[in-house]
Amino acid sequence: MRPSARKNDEMREISFVRNFIKHPEGSVLVSYGDTKVVCNASVMSGVPRFLKGTGQGWITAEYAMLPRSTNDRMMRESQVGKPHGRSQEIQRLIGRALRACVNMKGLSENTITIDCDVLQADGGTRTASITGACVALVEALRWMQTRQMIKELPLKFLIASVSVGVYKGFPVLDLDYQEDSNAETDMNVVMTEKGDFIELQGTAEGHPFKHQDLNGMLELAQKGIQELIFKQKRVLNL
Amino acid sequence: MRPSARKNDEMREISFVRNFIKHPEGSVLVSYGDTKVVCNASVMSGVPRFLKGTGQGWITAEYAMLPRSTNDRMMRESQVGKPHGRSQEIQRLIGRALRACVNMKGLSENTITIDCDVLQADGGTRTASITGACVALVEALRWMQTRQMIKELPLKFLIASVSVGVYKGFPVLDLDYQEDSNAETDMNVVMTEKGDFIELQGTAEGHPFKHQDLNGMLELAQKGIQELIFKQKRVLNL
Amino acid sequence: MRPSARKNDEMREISFVRNFIKHPEGSVLVSYGDTKVVCNASVMSGVPRFLKGTGQGWITAEYAMLPRSTNDRMMRESQVGKPHGRSQEIQRLIGRALRACVNMKGLSENTITIDCDVLQADGGTRTASITGACVALVEALRWMQTRQMIKELPLKFLIASVSVGVYKGFPVLDLDYQEDSNAETDMNVVMTEKGDFIELQGTAEGHPFKHQDLNGMLELAQKGIQELIFKQKRVLNL
Amino acid sequence: MRPSARKNDEMREISFVRNFIKHPEGSVLVSYGDTKVVCNASVMSGVPRFLKGTGQGWITAEYAMLPRSTNDRMMRESQVGKPHGRSQEIQRLIGRALRACVNMKGLSENTITIDCDVLQADGGTRTASITGACVALVEALRWMQTRQMIKELPLKFLIASVSVGVYKGFPVLDLDYQEDSNAETDMNVVMTEKGDFIELQGTAEGHPFKHQDLNGMLELAQKGIQELIFKQKRVLNL
Amino acid sequence: MRPSARKNDEMREISFVRNFIKHPEGSVLVSYGDTKVVCNASVMSGVPRFLKGTGQGWITAEYAMLPRSTNDRMMRESQVGKPHGRSQEIQRLIGRALRACVNMKGLSENTITIDCDVLQADGGTRTASITGACVALVEALRWMQTRQMIKELPLKFLIASVSVGVYKGFPVLDLDYQEDSNAETDMNVVMTEKGDFIELQGTAEGHPFKHQDLNGMLELAQKGIQELIFKQKRVLNL
Amino acid sequence: MRPSARKNDEMREISFVRNFIKHPEGSVLVSYGDTKVVCNASVMSGVPRFLKGTGQGWITAEYAMLPRSTNDRMMRESQVGKPHGRSQEIQRLIGRALRACVNMKGLSENTITIDCDVLQADGGTRTASITGACVALVEALRWMQTRQMIKELPLKFLIASVSVGVYKGFPVLDLDYQEDSNAETDMNVVMTEKGDFIELQGTAEGHPFKHQDLNGMLELAQKGIQELIFKQKRVLNL
Repeated sequence: MRPSARKNDEMREISFVRNFIKHPEGSVLVSYGDTKVVCNASVMSGVPRFLKGTGQGWITAEYAMLPRSTNDRMMRESQVGKPHGRSQEIQRLIGRALRACVNMKGLSENTITIDCDVLQADGGTRTASITGACVALVEALRWMQTRQMIKELPLKFLIASVSVGVYKGFPVLDLDYQEDSNAETDMNVVMTEKGDFIELQGTAEGHPFKHQDLNGMLELAQKGIQELIFKQKRVLNL
Repeated sequence: MRPSARKNDEMREISFVRNFIKHPEGSVLVSYGDTKVVCNASVMSGVPRFLKGTGQGWITAEYAMLPRSTNDRMMRESQVGKPHGRSQEIQRLIGRALRACVNMKGLSENTITIDCDVLQADGGTRTASITGACVALVEALRWMQTRQMIKELPLKFLIASVSVGVYKGFPVLDLDYQEDSNAETDMNVVMTEKGDFIELQGTAEGHPFKHQDLNGMLELAQKGIQELIFKQKRVLNL
Repeated sequence: MRPSARKNDEMREISFVRNFIKHPEGSVLVSYGDTKVVCNASVMSGVPRFLKGTGQGWITAEYAMLPRSTNDRMMRESQVGKPHGRSQEIQRLIGRALRACVNMKGLSENTITIDCDVLQADGGTRTASITGACVALVEALRWMQTRQMIKELPLKFLIASVSVGVYKGFPVLDLDYQEDSNAETDMNVVMTEKGDFIELQGTAEGHPFKHQDLNGMLELAQKGIQELIFKQKRVLNL
Repeated sequence: MRPSARKNDEMREISFVRNFIKHPEGSVLVSYGDTKVVCNASVMSGVPRFLKGTGQGWITAEYAMLPRSTNDRMMRESQVGKPHGRSQEIQRLIGRALRACVNMKGLSENTITIDCDVLQADGGTRTASITGACVALVEALRWMQTRQMIKELPLKFLIASVSVGVYKGFPVLDLDYQEDSNAETDMNVVMTEKGDFIELQGTAEGHPFKHQDLNGMLELAQKGIQELIFKQKRVLNL
Repeated sequence: MRPSARKNDEMREISFVRNFIKHPEGSVLVSYGDTKVVCNASVMSGVPRFLKGTGQGWITAEYAMLPRSTNDRMMRESQVGKPHGRSQEIQRLIGRALRACVNMKGLSENTITIDCDVLQADGGTRTASITGACVALVEALRWMQTRQMIKELPLKFLIASVSVGVYKGFPVLDLDYQEDSNAETDMNVVMTEKGDFIELQGTAEGHPFKHQDLNGMLELAQKGIQELIFKQKRVLNL
Repeated sequence: MRPSARKNDEMREISFVRNFIKHPEGSVLVSYGDTKVVCNASVMSGVPRFLKGTGQGWITAEYAMLPRSTNDRMMRESQVGKPHGRSQEIQRLIGRALRACVNMKGLSENTITIDCDVLQADGGTRTASITGACVALVEALRWMQTRQMIKELPLKFLIASVSVGVYKGFPVLDLDYQEDSNAETDMNVVMTEKGDFIELQGTAEGHPFKHQDLNGMLELAQKGIQELIFKQKRVLNL
């Protein structure tokens, strides 16, 4: 029995609020149950130095948590003087995943930055960030198209992300904080709308896991991601 | 005529959402029109070193803006490596104002940290932060009382804050971003529910201002703060 | 009775030493009693990026205290790794005040940086800094005029600054450290030679203050600033 | 055909030099072909604060590259002022993997830090680091046992790591730099000597990858890790 | 002929102002011609961690230049985020030299910090700092003796410092900025009042120097240091 | 008797391994007994800003120690956030010494950076760094000549470095760690192959030293440096 009384293959309630903040070119509040992340997409002309003159665009992401998004207050990274290692790892993952779903030539020499700021954390903040950021990214691409910065949407496919794990010996889908802190294995999966893998990051927390555990988890991930993509499409009218 | 078509002594629409985030001991989303700030209060036992053994508590504040709370994306302070000078100035102001309305002896050796994070900025983020933080502070004090960390609420009075200015030669109340960037004078006022001053910070942006300008602005500030205190009391059932 | 036995409207002994250091384009040692600040003005051609091509100049300030300018030795900001919040707040104030008294178009695309370094602190370091910096600024403008970098002095008016406060229930002028640490209210005022306000920053330290306290303090401030401007003019042969 | 003319399931030449540096409690130079990493294990009594009084030990890792371990000279992280995001991500991975193979209770309140410093990089520095660090860790545990800091070796199993990928459409084992920069998919695998998973990190660089690609890569990984474990055992006389 | 028209073995005008600043336990303004350095000594009870419980004291130094002490304005180290390499090198030298002249056992577990802040630089700031710091140190030791923190002055000997160099082929004493920037060799010498060496730092700027150059320079240094020690003694009434 | 049983004028075993790492333009592992330093030379086109357009090149050095190159593990400088003062002082010394032996005009506008990374420390890491860096520098210059970036080797002379000291009252050559920590005086000497001085840095650790001590130490230094230069020439086939 899961702490939340969900079935093993049952996700938390998922929602997207579009136009959450007025300034960004794309702005989405994504919720996976009590996990709430603001994903803001900013379009800027120009690219980092290593791409200048190539005709290609760039997509990058930043990730942070409000100090009290968690149960204990965390020190601000600006006080620490640098982003936490964990934040950097997550924002590298988000950026990499988003770059996989866009044709960079089609962006021209423009940069899209997606800021994922966690308002409230209850497990799965990185997976919610990726799923929400993908929606904000599409909004930003449409905004560019409207202003004729790009001719057509350079989107290869939608992506979404969910966590799976082994909890008390059984594979479970979309772990909340309570499960996450007790799971034997924790795996974050990013997949395309076609069911292919973009990222797979599995970690044995307690015991090493076996190939059959992996297969059980991947099956759940595939189911969850199909549901997420379905909801992304609905909110984007795709 | 003000850009927003408001009357000179008319505030923007003010609202407070309590329990905005689930983890903090006090959590308020305050809006002054399109300016939206999350104010989260965290109670921690213990005090900074200079107060140890005195039996007194401490209140402090931190202030930051999401990168895309503004029209142009700002670089994250964690990337810069340190808080901006402006942020530090504002959080020093917020902390000072909140400490003025609490009896520190009555807090025992506990610290309350109020995080003010601006989701969306349209002028007046520091005044909205103070007004919202005061509500979150009262929530946190009540939380402490419920848990018998303190016997009675050590609150001396409520405080609220509003900006006033001279715009096109006339004093105006509660400037939004468009007015703020064109005002000749900009003044932030923090007052108690009794109508006394806690902080007064006036800056001549264009021309120096005269004593009669000051009096005109203070009259508007007093009116605005009365309205704010009225709304704080209603949302706090005081 | 004030600790220094001064009358309520009596300033400390004020002095200016011009050409204190040989390298800067303007160099003034200002003293308000035992408070001693070196104000050095540096002229550099060029302006910050946001002003390039506008034909306008820029004025900025930096403020710091020698580690042992105070009774207890303070850690150097270069050791801490960043300026203290208090230093940044003060240097923002100084810069803003100095920019108000110069016509930026008349500066052409040149930058003047005023470094205010406190050798010895006894209360009122920010007000002494502003008053001394104004003298160093005029020296630097004259230096530019001599070298024909500018045609005429783009000075709108002189400014000076003084602190006022409520001490043991009475308004007092130009607080020294002993008064400052015990005052109920502390207010820093920057005014022009014409008696108009540039900055007004009042803080209730102990009790909130009333409108009549404000008026009492402002009256003293006006008197003090007239004396300071008189002395500035004399040392500048104006 | 692979650039190195290796077969798809063929690893580079693997070697371990024990006692590479004289000061550490464990010191191993590990080579995967031209990739050379020094892994130094340091034993210190005491544990981080969150473990004090629990009777448990701790294992952590740090990872860095010499500036000229790569073809282009990289700026030193001490000049940048903080470790690169990539370095932090890798050292978090190494630490997590090593902690999985030790019984922390059996370490008592001691900390082992493994420094992995890359002398020469040619792809696979993180996998070589993990495999070499595991050997250095065993050396350090034996050193502790000799000094009776611990009664028995608290080692659950050996671990080793290798990269696999999809290169020109085929799965390949142990990618060198030339393959790595052109692979469609890159996956780092950490497994135990029993063939179970500790970490799995797969990234689609070019195209998303399919479940059958995953299976092909995992088969190669398993073969490579068996060979690595065999060599670890021989060099450790296990 | 030297630019200053001094003879080869002629020092600049040397002066010491005692009690320059009121707060420190020792405060000296030292001038070597136009080079002016404030040396402030602070006595604090307690020692760094590595000396706790040893009964020994500690002496350390910090060195910095005001931004406009030089001809071109230098960026503040607090803006850079860390002390310049040059500053650190100089303060390590000053600290080492001062520790050589005090019996650390006789200090008990107290720390003396000497802050050397350069107001105006014209060559030789590090040598002036050492010579002035020695006077401030004696003042601080006397202050401790008066308060019975120490029984007797734990001073082994006075030290002083001067630069020598090879300028246009001839050895010269006490280089000013103009000579320093053109000297072929530059050497800083710290000696005791007995004529023994504490530090010797010689650098060939243009050509390597020979043993006979070294001897020529050391002879001048010895003469200069005798004069400095004579003046130190006079100002200290020794 | 020296702890190592060496004669007073006897150096440790000296060796150079060329081509230690494959990527750099010059790469040398230098050993002075148990002190082992990797010296990697990197050639980059372009020069620092202050040399642009002068037709001159630049040589600079960086120095660091692996965390466990010493008996106690040192915190990484990238964790501290900045290089240690000691590292900066040493790298300034290395850079200065190397610049003395090259004709900068002959380098054209190219920069050579020498990274000296200490793998294992047993006293004398800065002297070994300089001696090894000189060999790596020659390798890099030859590499440039082969690629016709420069016409002829702009090398004025070879340099080498050794430490000397006073140990138990006698002058000794090439101190190892055990001697170094107990020596009364420690002096680092850099000389050219012609026997002239480039740098001389002597520090009295215990007692001040006398002119005759200096002469005794310099005699030993000269002998040691002749041996080092002989070995440099042999390994470089000069």
